[in-house]
Parts: sequence; structure tokens; C-alpha cells
Amino acid sequence: MISNHFLHKFLFPNSLCVFGANNDVLNTMGSMQLHNIITGGFEGAIYPIHPRLKEIQGRKAYRSVLELPEIPELAFIILPPIAVPKVMEECGEKGVKYLIITSGGFRESGSDGKILSHQIDKIAKKYSMRFIGPNCLGVYNGWYGGNNKNCLYLNTMWISQVPERGNISITSQSGTIACHLAWHARRLGIKIGKSFSNGNERNVDIVDILSYLKDDPQTDVIGLYIEEIKRGQEFVKLAKEVSKQKPIVAIYAGGTEAATRSIMSHTGSIGGSQEIFEAVFKKTGIISSNTITDFLYYLGTFSWAKKNNIFPSGNRVAIITDSGGAGAMMTKASEIYGLSVPEFSNKLQEKLRTYVPPTGSVNNPIDVTFDMDLSKLYLKYPKILAKSGEIDGIFIYGVFDFREIMDIVNKIIPLRNKALLNINETIEKLVILRIKNMIRRLKIPIFYIGPQPYETSMNQMFLRNGIPIFDLWDQPTKCFEALVRYNHFRQYHLN
Amino acid sequence: MISNHFLHKFLFPNSLCVFGANNDVLNTMGSMQLHNIITGGFEGAIYPIHPRLKEIQGRKAYRSVLELPEIPELAFIILPPIAVPKVMEECGEKGVKYLIITSGGFRESGSDGKILSHQIDKIAKKYSMRFIGPNCLGVYNGWYGGNNKNCLYLNTMWISQVPERGNISITSQSGTIACHLAWHARRLGIKIGKSFSNGNERNVDIVDILSYLKDDPQTDVIGLYIEEIKRGQEFVKLAKEVSKQKPIVAIYAGGTEAATRSIMSHTGSIGGSQEIFEAVFKKTGIISSNTITDFLYYLGTFSWAKKNNIFPSGNRVAIITDSGGAGAMMTKASEIYGLSVPEFSNKLQEKLRTYVPPTGSVNNPIDVTFDMDLSKLYLKYPKILAKSGEIDGIFIYGVFDFREIMDIVNKIIPLRNKALLNINETIEKLVILRIKNMIRRLKIPIFYIGPQPYETSMNQMFLRNGIPIFDLWDQPTKCFEALVRYNHFRQYHLN
Repeated sequence: MISNHFLHKFLFPNSLCVFGANNDVLNTMGSMQLHNIITGGFEGAIYPIHPRLKEIQGRKAYRSVLELPEIPELAFIILPPIAVPKVMEECGEKGVKYLIITSGGFRESGSDGKILSHQIDKIAKKYSMRFIGPNCLGVYNGWYGGNNKNCLYLNTMWISQVPERGNISITSQSGTIACHLAWHARRLGIKIGKSFSNGNERNVDIVDILSYLKDDPQTDVIGLYIEEIKRGQEFVKLAKEVSKQKPIVAIYAGGTEAATRSIMSHTGSIGGSQEIFEAVFKKTGIISSNTITDFLYYLGTFSWAKKNNIFPSGNRVAIITDSGGAGAMMTKASEIYGLSVPEFSNKLQEKLRTYVPPTGSVNNPIDVTFDMDLSKLYLKYPKILAKSGEIDGIFIYGVFDFREIMDIVNKIIPLRNKALLNINETIEKLVILRIKNMIRRLKIPIFYIGPQPYETSMNQMFLRNGIPIFDLWDQPTKCFEALVRYNHFRQYHLN
Repeated sequence: MISNHFLHKFLFPNSLCVFGANNDVLNTMGSMQLHNIITGGFEGAIYPIHPRLKEIQGRKAYRSVLELPEIPELAFIILPPIAVPKVMEECGEKGVKYLIITSGGFRESGSDGKILSHQIDKIAKKYSMRFIGPNCLGVYNGWYGGNNKNCLYLNTMWISQVPERGNISITSQSGTIACHLAWHARRLGIKIGKSFSNGNERNVDIVDILSYLKDDPQTDVIGLYIEEIKRGQEFVKLAKEVSKQKPIVAIYAGGTEAATRSIMSHTGSIGGSQEIFEAVFKKTGIISSNTITDFLYYLGTFSWAKKNNIFPSGNRVAIITDSGGAGAMMTKASEIYGLSVPEFSNKLQEKLRTYVPPTGSVNNPIDVTFDMDLSKLYLKYPKILAKSGEIDGIFIYGVFDFREIMDIVNKIIPLRNKALLNINETIEKLVILRIKNMIRRLKIPIFYIGPQPYETSMNQMFLRNGIPIFDLWDQPTKCFEALVRYNHFRQYHLN
């Protein structure tokens, strides 16, 4: 039972108290964090603790945790570091078992910080308390309210623009990264269900979190932002276990000289060399990424693959396009990233020739030139290719959103045909559902790639329907390669 | 005089005729292209030529070019390939000197195509005509109307969503790439002034276009999408000359096995190996990119650098951030891409310490933690760093758009302070202009990098004011490195 794991209470606490919030949402970060907890629809009791204020953000405030009418399940501390040990001690006395210590200024800031760190270690031990942090932002749990629309989420972070809920969970040793990911995740339609900002990892560490996510039925894919790993052996053993079932994508932020210096001043930790981490990632089947962009795209791709249980069994891709240039670019990118773009057999080429216009090309990449029959591009060719057994995945490059063009046409000759006038809705009705079903049936990755940004309504329609769509022309090849690599690891270890 | 170059007439023709357009904007590409020429505000006479129609898109149509009341300066042919030689011959008889042949199906489609290709070569020679294409989309000229707001541009391509006009010119052997770039260019605020889709390059080739752009005062930066180079020696000689004055960014789409196959079926051309092209790019100072994303970001960066005449003299960068994680990521990315993130001297650290809060770090990267004094982050630190002489460029990472936060604050405690309520406008007034002037004065690249997408109104404000801003966290380091590399080439060859 996942609810028996101690970390479950950090994500689904029945009640909580908050140290360090007031009514000045503008100038104190803790106040914004409390605001986010409230507006997320937290269902249990919320107890603000404050030495002077009687009411904070509409909730009755208490002078001390000792005065609370019940034992809160979670304490959330956003106080200057020097004030932390005292309130921690009081939490212990009261019987609070779980704490999030947001406050920075512990280990990362010289000898004072070290003394404070040892103090909080001791207090936690004395009362058998577990804590996340210090120097963190706590948790985001998109699954907090289940299907209750009034409880949207539990969000102790300062960022209010949360991503859509999905099967990806994140753990990040940087609170900012945990928060800042949200903007691009939303833009790219990448759905994050749970997120831990684990900061200095003085008590709860990445191994604890991984062990929770391993058995969490709401998590299919795991993203790690790593600056150091304290329990290396445990991590390797566990990550390898987890990887077999749930793809893990990781960024290691250290490994170069200045990066190590940067991390030391930030969390006080010392990471290993890039080589060590690459070896760890390889051994554990973790997909490594060096950039936040890759990190997000990989997570999105694995999220889809796990949800649909579709993994490519090899690295052979077919490319279908209406543009020779885009075909060439995608072909080159595929080869650069280790994919194969094989020539088709004569038999397959002959079959394709029945549909592709004479100006087009039926070898790989298929270039349909100016054929406007979208159902062939979207459905017919992928089906023929998938059934041929000659390829393991398909890239379809084209312009998908025709609204702009139809608006122009309509200005010149008013369109009587409502299907054309509302072209996007027509495509949704006629094609999108068929694409969705086709991919499910064919069981191979089919990626749709276009030059238009994610904001385009057609791209949003693909996303809404869970069909992989990419607007950056170079990412799909990288993502496909990551799928191949992961599946290779998985197959090897499961057999 | 640039207007003496024969290609000038392709961009600024006084009159033109169009073969292959009708009133069916939906189903014939030529009709959409004519539509774009008309709506761009073409000032001269437009003569549609059609065997039957009397009027096309509100313009009087003629049965033959021979019937026109004047000699059009440019002919635009979008007909099936078999029909091209006849109309070309008539154009020659009439005295037309410049043609854009959009039609595909020449060299790329086997022996028939080859015969047709030789035919059009002969006709061009016979009448001393120059033509762009075949298998192309012609030109886009954002400078066509100068400052006349009624003539926006000359756009013979099918895409109607054109980028903003700027100092970047593009030449692309793929028409689709030339068109499709527009969407992302608009999104990223990358301003393109002129664009050539040169297709098969049967007559006008990349060397011709480069020779035009070399002396074009409206072009500061050049982007090349290359599938082959026919006149290799001339290209190398010219590109090296051009590079010294105007940065060139190039994508070579061939070089791998399947990519070469793809290009052959597309334009019929055979490109060289990746190694050959990399050597050519290095020798000529061309900045090479393998992805469309890099291509666009590099162009945008060089556009800014040329406009402000700011190039870094070395590869030492300072990183300023309010986030340890982002600082670590940016530091690592900098080192991966060959930049140096040096430790600061004691003197510089002491100076910074007067301003950075005690929780922060004054070594490189500077971490200001939760200091909300934006003028320090945006202005004070960059000034101190630039004047230290210890670095050649600055990355500033932070959240720049606070509107969302202010909206939340305002809901809780109605903001009486109008400056906070209209935070973005306040920042524009108080900070943006000062940033702009500071960068001009300090003469070193200062890049602003944030987690929020380009669509954010603050990012748009930076773009509007010509301040380099990045939303993808990994691009600024690549772009800075490209600037360093280019400047090294330029300095070496100018001295």
C-alpha cells in the first residue's frame, strides 16, 4: 500500500500548520505559499502560526504549535534559519511527525549553517520526525483532490501557474527548477502529477522519494534534477529496479568545474564528475539529458509511451512529409541521433506508389508533395508502413493547422462549405479520433511534427487527444532515440 | 549600387505577370501566391495570364504575355512543368528578363525532367533571361514598400503569416523551409527582411544571391539552408569575403546516407559529406547549425549583435541569477559549449558583497537569492561586472514577468499602488529603457534568460526594445559561443 509509505503524508496530509506566513503576499514568500495551499483547495485544517497576528489570509492564527486543538500531520516552516530549531522542537513536543523546512541558510552558508544543520538533525532524531529540506519549496501534488474539482491540488511552492495533472512525477534538488519547469510544461502539454523540491536532503533524500514513486500508481514516469547523490549505492540499486517499470529521465547539473563551484555555494554539496554520473545513468537505464528542454520533451514522450504502452522495438523510422526540405532535415537529424531511415523494399514502394502522386517520392522519406488529401498523410501511409514490418516508428511532418488559410480563402470567396470554414473542428471530427485509434491499434510510435507553435489550436487539439505532436523540428528524433534506448534496457532486464 | 545587381529586380520589380493563378485560392497554390502578392500591397501593374478567365482576383487577365500593354519586369510561373517552355519562350519574345519558375517536376523526376531542364536553360540563354527555380517559391521582400505602410511586402510564397521585417536575409534551397521558418521566427521575435527560395538553382544560384546580399544595405546577417553547392570555389571565396562583414549562419541538410537519398529525390542534387561542409564552413567563418532551432536562435543573436555592433572579445561569462539550480544549469551549459565561467577576483567579490544579500553568493555564478530589488539584478550587477574587465559577457537568469503574481496579490489585498498593479508597464518605464541604454554603453553582450515563454508580455517587451531575451534555457550559451567564434574569425581576417 503506497499510503503506508511515510512520504504519502507529505502529499496527502489531513491537516497542516504553517510557520512564516502573514498577510503580505507581496513581500513574504511564505505568504504566497500559504495562499497557494488555500487556493489549491486544501480540505483539512490549516493552522497559521504567528507570534502576533490573530488572523492570516482568512484563517485563525495561533501563537504556537503547542496551542493547536489537534496535532497537524504536516508542519511547513518558512522562517529565518536561526528560528527553525525552536519551532521544530515545539513541533516535536506537540507530536508532529512530518515537516517541510523551506528556509535556506543551513549547510550552504558556512559554519553557522553547519551548526544549525546538526541541531535540526538532532531534533528530528529525538522526536522521530522526518523532514524535507531545508532550502527547498516542498511539494506539489496534482492528485491531492482526486476527482473532486474543488480540491485541485496541494501546492506548497510559490508558483501558482501549475501544470496539468498527469503521470509524470518530478524530484528536484533545486526548488526553482521544480517551479520554473511549470511554465514550459504547460506550454508543451507535459502533464506533471507530483513534484518534490528536496533541497539539501538533510533527512528525506532522493532515494526515499524514488522508493515512494516506485510503488505510486499515479506515477508512470519519473524526472530527476540532481546536484548530488548522497546514498550512491542505494540509489543505483533502486533506480535500476524502478527503471525496469518506470522510465526515469535525469539531469545532472554538476560535473564541470564551475558548475561544481556553483552547486557548492547553492546547496553545499559536492557532486561527482560527469563521467561517473553518465556511468550511473547507463547502468540504471536512466535517460540522461543535459538541458531542461530535452528533459521536458523526454518526459512528455515517455509519459505518452507508458500511458499507451507503446515502445519501439527497433530504431528504424519512416518519414512522411509534404516537403522535401523538411524530409531532408528530419532524415539527417534521425541519422545524427542514431536512428536508421532505411530504404523501403520494392514491394512496399509499389504499394505506396498507388497513393503517392507521381511528383512525389515513395522511398524513405516519402514526399507526397502537394497532395492535399490529408487522410492519406495522416492515416493511409502510416497504416501501410506499420503493417510492412520494415520500420519501428513513423514521423509525419506537415502543416496541421489550416484555419489561417481558410480565413484568407473565406475573405476572397465566402466559403459556403461549413466543413471548410470550420476546418479545425472538421479535422477533429474526421481525422483526430481516427488517428488516436490507429496509433492504439498499430502499437508503434507515430509522431506528428509541424512548423507551427504549440499555441496553434490544432496542436492543442492533438495534445488534448493524447497524440504526440512536436513543434520543434529537432526534438522528435531525440525523443524517439530515447524510447529505443530505454526499451532496449527494459527488454534486456526483463528477459 | 545594389540596384544595379540583376537580382534587385526580383525583389523590387516595377510590374509582374503571373502564369498559373486563378480564382480558386483554396485548391491552386499559384492563386494563393498571387493573393499574397496583391495583399502585400504591390504597387506596380499585376498581369494575370490565363487561357480562359477574363478576370482573376479582381485584376484583368490576359490570354498571353504577348498581349500585355507593357513588358513586365518579372514573370512568375506556377504551371505544370510541361507547360513551362512555351510560356518562357513567349516571355523571351516579349522581352521579359527575369522569371521565377515555381513549378516542380524538372530535374528531380527522372529523364523527362532532365529534358525539360535543358530546354529552359536554352530558352533563358537565347533571350538572356535570368530565372530563379524551378521547384521553388520565389521571394519574400519585407523591404519592398520602404516606409510606405500600404505596401507591406512582396511575397510570392504561399505562406501569408510573414515575419517582422529586419536585418536578416535568408536563402533556402527548400521552399518549405523558407516558408515554415516564418512561424517560429515570429514567435521568437526574429526579424527577416528578405528571403529567397532558390529551388533547383538551374540559373540563379546561391553564389548569385550571396553576391547580392553582400552589398545589400538592408542585410546585416545571412541565413543559408543548403542541400548542395554547385559552384564550390566561387562560394568559398565569396562566403569568406561576406563573412568578414556580415555573419552567415548555415544549415547543411545533407551529409548522411539517407539524407543524401532524400535530397536526391527532392532536388535531384548530390551534396558532399558532412566533413567537407564542416571544413567549408570553418574556412569561410560560416556558423554551422544542424537544427532549425539553432539556426533561428543564431540568426536572432547575430541580428542583434550586428545592429548594436556588440561582439564579445573573449569567452568569459558572468552568470547572475536568483536561483541556485538555474545558475548551476547555466554554468554547466556554458562549460559544455566551450565558454568559461571564471571565479571573480577578491576585489570584485568584495564590491559585489556590498549589494548581494548575505544569503547569496558573490562568486561566479552570482546568486542573489530572494532579493526583490530588480534594479540591482537588471542594472547594478551587470554594470559592476562589465567594468571589472574580468568577463566578456553576462547571462541574467530570473523571472521577468510579475503580472501573474500581482494579479494574485491584488485579489487578496487590493493594491493601491498603481505602479505595482500595472507592474509590467512600471518595469517598462523604469527599467527597460535603462537596460537598453546600459547595453549600448557597456558594449558587451548581456542576455536575459527566463523560464517564461516568449508569449509572456514581459518577454515581448524585451523583444520590442531590442534586448536579447531567451526562453529556452539552453540556447543563450550556444548563441554566445557562436558570437565568440564568429568574432574570432572576423578579428583574425580584418587584422
